[in-house]
Amino acid sequence: MRALVYQGPARSSWDTVQDPAIQEATDAIVRVDATSVCGSDLHILAGDLPEVKPGTVLGHEAVGEIEEVGAEVHHLRPGDQVIVSSVSACGHCRACRDAMYGQCGGGGGWILGNLIDGTQAEWVRVPFADHSTTRCPCELAPDDAVLLAELLPTAYEVGVRNGHVSPGDTVVVVGAGPVGLATVVVARLYSPRRIIVVDLADARLETALRVGADAAESPGGLIADLSDGPGADVVVEASGDPDGFVLCTRAVRTGGHIANIGAHGRPATLHLESLWRKNVTISTGQVDTSSTPRLLDLVRFGRLPVSGLVTHTFGLDRIRDAYDVFARGATTGALKVVLHRE
Amino acid sequence: MRALVYQGPARSSWDTVQDPAIQEATDAIVRVDATSVCGSDLHILAGDLPEVKPGTVLGHEAVGEIEEVGAEVHHLRPGDQVIVSSVSACGHCRACRDAMYGQCGGGGGWILGNLIDGTQAEWVRVPFADHSTTRCPCELAPDDAVLLAELLPTAYEVGVRNGHVSPGDTVVVVGAGPVGLATVVVARLYSPRRIIVVDLADARLETALRVGADAAESPGGLIADLSDGPGADVVVEASGDPDGFVLCTRAVRTGGHIANIGAHGRPATLHLESLWRKNVTISTGQVDTSSTPRLLDLVRFGRLPVSGLVTHTFGLDRIRDAYDVFARGATTGALKVVLHRE
Repeated sequence: MRALVYQGPARSSWDTVQDPAIQEATDAIVRVDATSVCGSDLHILAGDLPEVKPGTVLGHEAVGEIEEVGAEVHHLRPGDQVIVSSVSACGHCRACRDAMYGQCGGGGGWILGNLIDGTQAEWVRVPFADHSTTRCPCELAPDDAVLLAELLPTAYEVGVRNGHVSPGDTVVVVGAGPVGLATVVVARLYSPRRIIVVDLADARLETALRVGADAAESPGGLIADLSDGPGADVVVEASGDPDGFVLCTRAVRTGGHIANIGAHGRPATLHLESLWRKNVTISTGQVDTSSTPRLLDLVRFGRLPVSGLVTHTFGLDRIRDAYDVFARGATTGALKVVLHRE
Repeated sequence: MRALVYQGPARSSWDTVQDPAIQEATDAIVRVDATSVCGSDLHILAGDLPEVKPGTVLGHEAVGEIEEVGAEVHHLRPGDQVIVSSVSACGHCRACRDAMYGQCGGGGGWILGNLIDGTQAEWVRVPFADHSTTRCPCELAPDDAVLLAELLPTAYEVGVRNGHVSPGDTVVVVGAGPVGLATVVVARLYSPRRIIVVDLADARLETALRVGADAAESPGGLIADLSDGPGADVVVEASGDPDGFVLCTRAVRTGGHIANIGAHGRPATLHLESLWRKNVTISTGQVDTSSTPRLLDLVRFGRLPVSGLVTHTFGLDRIRDAYDVFARGATTGALKVVLHRE
């Protein structure tokens, strides 16, 4: 089959590789109908994740059709349409019993396109298939469904839910990339009063307003905007930048929440000299994708308007063009980029 | 009356000052029967809290008898025995309506011995007296009661409750001063499996074992102890030191909680490069003393064995000796030091 293969920092190849096959009785083989590019893929190519070995097929978000299942797969049959979650879950370890699938200690977690071959290919082997996929109703558009593989659960679980967004809140989202703007869309579920998005790139700020932010500002603009009030009830860090994190701690009100989604490569300064008495709660987290079924229903029944989050689509064989558009999102305005099987 | 007066950094005087008088209709005048010394008092004397003006009577923890009440005090009468909370609460502002009294925006918060004259004196004016005191049953020993003014509520609200201590947890407390060891005692309410106290001073580690810690270790010993498991479920930072905070982030398990109690004067490093995907929750907070009635009942009915927390008592006129013993706690073994009216 054809697949995008990681070849070491800054190098990938669109290659012919061996078709995946069942290795464990809990595996399924999925024909990939749509897959998408994620910021983590860029981190891998930047060499930030040394655990990814050259030769690994990239990608961890997909929708497709079950083609084959192992003997211990009990809830899926060939022909089923599924969302392949970025997180695989053994379903039995202590973390999985706590629905903390992203921290699975039984061989799962984020392994697709990381420790094992991923979804940016014609077919993918999905481990622990019963726990790592969600059946997908056929009326759902693939471009919406693929957002449920990781993006929307991340925004919901790590951003909105960890941040305790509540009715009437002022919510600030730092970083207007795909996960930041998915957070804007998902935060609306809790009826906040105002959502302010912060970014350094003008193109991203325009996109933020288009997907429904009430205001889009530079970091300096945010601080000025909040200066006559108590600060934001919830601040979601979605930039992955240490300065972005510090901005969050400046923007949050006394008693407020900071939810970190951003993947960080460097430490940040925690200004405990002002925060220690500020009753602030800071959370970090990796997505569990436990919320995929709930979010699927919301999308399906028209309660979560996500279509603005996909800005570009390509045929799978143009995946390197897709990466290029995605990587230059601050100028191309690209949010989620989806690849379709021809 | 006689009172301990702050005279600027590193200077205090045991002085004769004017007796306090009712200034607002919501005030009460309390005769101080017992008062105690707190780490914050040392911070004031170190010059760390520039808002404290020379001439201010120090102290914010007391028990005593109501001698006079203003016209708008409805729930207290002369002769009532009360605990004077370190936090005064207007009871009407937005923060107070959320029981976030420590953040009172109506003129309260931590003002005693900070912005107004405090409790290390023969009498004290208590603002918003209805909301800033708790009636104290006469069978309660003053040395136990005075712990309810700030120490035990801090350990409970900011440490144990913010940290979500739960049955079966491994709890680590960093810093074996009074608030750290009060946290050990209070954490037992939630039946943790093991409480480990960390400090640099051997004398404090011995005291930790005496008040009920299961283990008392150096920072290096802690890391070695936790190295064969997932880490601590809850880590309480009670050292006020940036290195202590970083130790907390190393000791906490994936999915665990860090509750910061320590008063910090400097920033700490937040290692987001490892924490971002660790599902960690970090909380900060100033005490609200909303839990004083609940803790009072626990002490009164023998469910909270707090007597080991008071190590030294003095007559009020020996308060400067008391400060000396308290400040050298790492060698004297002093935890809470209580001053009694003669």
